[in-house]
Amino acid sequence: MTAVRLVGVRQGLLERFRHPAQVIVGGFAVAVLAGTGLLALPAASESGQSAGVLTALFTATSAVCVTGLVVVDTGTQWSLFGELVIVGLIQAGGLGIMTLATLFALLVSGRLGLRARLLVQAETKTLQGVGVRRVIRNIVIFSLGCEAVLAVALALRFALAYGEPVGRAAYLGVFHAVSAFNNAGFGLWPDSLVRFAADPWVCLPIALAVIIGGLGFPVIFELVRSWRRPRAWSVLTRVTVGTTVVLLAAGTLVLTAAEWDNPGTLGPLSGPAKVLAGFFTAVMPRTAGFNSIDIVAMRSESWLATDILMFIGGGSAGTAGGIKVTTFGLLAFVMWAELRGEDRVNIGHRRLPGPVQRQALTIALLGVGLVAVSTFALLAMVPHTLDKVLFEVISAFATVGLSTGITADLPPAARLLLVALMFIGRVGPVTVFSALALRERTRRYELPEERPIVG
Amino acid sequence: MTAVRLVGVRQGLLERFRHPAQVIVGGFAVAVLAGTGLLALPAASESGQSAGVLTALFTATSAVCVTGLVVVDTGTQWSLFGELVIVGLIQAGGLGIMTLATLFALLVSGRLGLRARLLVQAETKTLQGVGVRRVIRNIVIFSLGCEAVLAVALALRFALAYGEPVGRAAYLGVFHAVSAFNNAGFGLWPDSLVRFAADPWVCLPIALAVIIGGLGFPVIFELVRSWRRPRAWSVLTRVTVGTTVVLLAAGTLVLTAAEWDNPGTLGPLSGPAKVLAGFFTAVMPRTAGFNSIDIVAMRSESWLATDILMFIGGGSAGTAGGIKVTTFGLLAFVMWAELRGEDRVNIGHRRLPGPVQRQALTIALLGVGLVAVSTFALLAMVPHTLDKVLFEVISAFATVGLSTGITADLPPAARLLLVALMFIGRVGPVTVFSALALRERTRRYELPEERPIVG
Ligand SMILES: [K+]
Ligand SMILES: [K+]
Repeated sequence: MTAVRLVGVRQGLLERFRHPAQVIVGGFAVAVLAGTGLLALPAASESGQSAGVLTALFTATSAVCVTGLVVVDTGTQWSLFGELVIVGLIQAGGLGIMTLATLFALLVSGRLGLRARLLVQAETKTLQGVGVRRVIRNIVIFSLGCEAVLAVALALRFALAYGEPVGRAAYLGVFHAVSAFNNAGFGLWPDSLVRFAADPWVCLPIALAVIIGGLGFPVIFELVRSWRRPRAWSVLTRVTVGTTVVLLAAGTLVLTAAEWDNPGTLGPLSGPAKVLAGFFTAVMPRTAGFNSIDIVAMRSESWLATDILMFIGGGSAGTAGGIKVTTFGLLAFVMWAELRGEDRVNIGHRRLPGPVQRQALTIALLGVGLVAVSTFALLAMVPHTLDKVLFEVISAFATVGLSTGITADLPPAARLLLVALMFIGRVGPVTVFSALALRERTRRYELPEERPIVG
Repeated sequence: MTAVRLVGVRQGLLERFRHPAQVIVGGFAVAVLAGTGLLALPAASESGQSAGVLTALFTATSAVCVTGLVVVDTGTQWSLFGELVIVGLIQAGGLGIMTLATLFALLVSGRLGLRARLLVQAETKTLQGVGVRRVIRNIVIFSLGCEAVLAVALALRFALAYGEPVGRAAYLGVFHAVSAFNNAGFGLWPDSLVRFAADPWVCLPIALAVIIGGLGFPVIFELVRSWRRPRAWSVLTRVTVGTTVVLLAAGTLVLTAAEWDNPGTLGPLSGPAKVLAGFFTAVMPRTAGFNSIDIVAMRSESWLATDILMFIGGGSAGTAGGIKVTTFGLLAFVMWAELRGEDRVNIGHRRLPGPVQRQALTIALLGVGLVAVSTFALLAMVPHTLDKVLFEVISAFATVGLSTGITADLPPAARLLLVALMFIGRVGPVTVFSALALRERTRRYELPEERPIVG
């Protein structure tokens, strides 16, 4: 009896271990529930009265999924204890995603056949020969190191230029450093970072941390090791860095131009400050969620441009959300190859296999479908226009946290929809990718070909 | 000298003939310019004063591209001569697209190598052994036949149930029959077909003609020949019919439910009339552009659902626009195969080749990109919200012709943008497809594979 039960348990564990997707979903769900419990405590609120389960659930999900959407002002609502819970959830969520997504390929490589293992090793050659423990250690050290440097820089600036007391400046520095590196976007000021729009000593370090944290550990690791030899970079690093540079440049140009003379946003700033704030506004959709200009006052066309940047998001296996710059970049390469009439999709003297193209397509289509259905549902629940609803849905899906201001007033059903979107947006891509990569390919025989007309 | 010039001309002709894309673009441009000239004549306007070049250009483009967007009310603005010009342009544009797109595969098959010819014949097996002249004859006979049947049905209804004089009823029948079968959406009543919302004897024949005309000739031909044996259908016909049925059913359900109690649209109608109008509203985005309920009064979520239906559009090589139900259906199959972990994409015991998957992806991405950039540009030009601007852009791109009412008031630059969108939306997919299909695939050697992380 005991033996049978033991075997049963053992099979259950094995079964679970064979599906890392379930481990990831389970881990995040536990973190969200624990955070909800802690934030619902009266001690977590400044007022000493519980914030309520729904608000606690929304805030905990937003923190664990490093989103940054809020239904209450973080600095006003939560006590020091509540804020520490939030920063802890952000750190746990950010590290969790980074380590799980990075380790995933390694975990998989021990579970599949020889050919698959070789494939996985090829795609993550940066991790070859590196043990699981060492990978985790490297990620933790690098993350905490970056956060420490940013925290010191911010604390110094807050203390020296804005006259904050030393303890308060240090606290503000640590909170915003953790929030920035993990692309969480939680802030302690009700206007996010609008008061610092013209201050490069606050905006540039935060932007840099957001970009680095959003690249993803495999790319960071490779850049640290061989940043001088771009020719030796893997396809992942090439596409991530290339697409990131293009999107940041194009985003800065478009957003700065579109908002240049908008009296509610860039209008009152000096020329250089406009460019700084435009750059900051182009960085934050991937997918940090701070803002140094008033999102509500932005023009419709800027919201659309931000929607696109948010949907694309940041790098794979990092703290960024969205469909990822890799997916976007690969699809661009596929399209380009097709338009040039080339049989193969080649990126820097490497050929992109067909299955990867299909994975990129599937992830992009799933994202479009999820955003479309959610936007339709939310439009039916609230009286707002498509501009604002689409913005909020993409912000939640891509775990960005920028808001046109409607989230704070949403009815409970709409809040739960956003909670679900944040959760799916955070664990979904990793889970879907792992499911796709783990799947045994069964049908081996081939059917006769037939080419229908397309277009 | 003469010989040299002749050779030059001959080479020029050959060169042009080698690029059917240029023939198509050139033919449509000539038709638009001729139409603009005719409609700008004072005699074309009811008032006897020229409508102006911009209005004439917009209307001619809308007619040739079978779109149906208007900046002036068709029935009020144009004289009988002007209306005949419009119906002539619609017929020319509709037949032009049908014949050119259908013949394209045949034209190509004579120009490429043996392997390509076999491929093309395989994909258009319905046309095998059928001469060019016979194809054109069949298309013309079938089109005019359908239009005649519809014209008689409509004329009888207009005369018997609405008391129109016989001549007027016949004229109204012919105009709306041509407009419907060619998916043009031009109407002679200022409210389109809102007055007939509850009349199945007007709405159902028009909906049927729109659906048939939008299937595309290759599919129509196959259905006529073997509608009893669905198992023998080609992939093109299977995907077109299957996706069409799914989209019509889902569209009817979603739109009827979303507008059920909207006092501005379905609210005042009886139960059956609600379903009839909901069905009609779901048919028209693919891509006919008539409306039997007030588009302006529709809810935001219905606009979004209509946006999606319009973007997808109708069948390939027909009068419908959009990225085509084939493209959408194939991408759905690709995604489904990827999610199920299957190596190959199989549709009804036929394997879908990789290049076709890439073509579908490219066409969809080009469509998304064009709509995104155009929407951004139009948002910057006008004070309207994303709801309306996106609707108008997709309506123009997919040559639908539905409008939330902003087109009539657009500034000249915005009108020219829509003119360009209608033109590109009409000739673009055929041109892009022909360019993709004609291209010589050059790179034959293979590079080593590498799989970056996606998602
Ligand atoms: K975020
Ligand atoms: K139309």
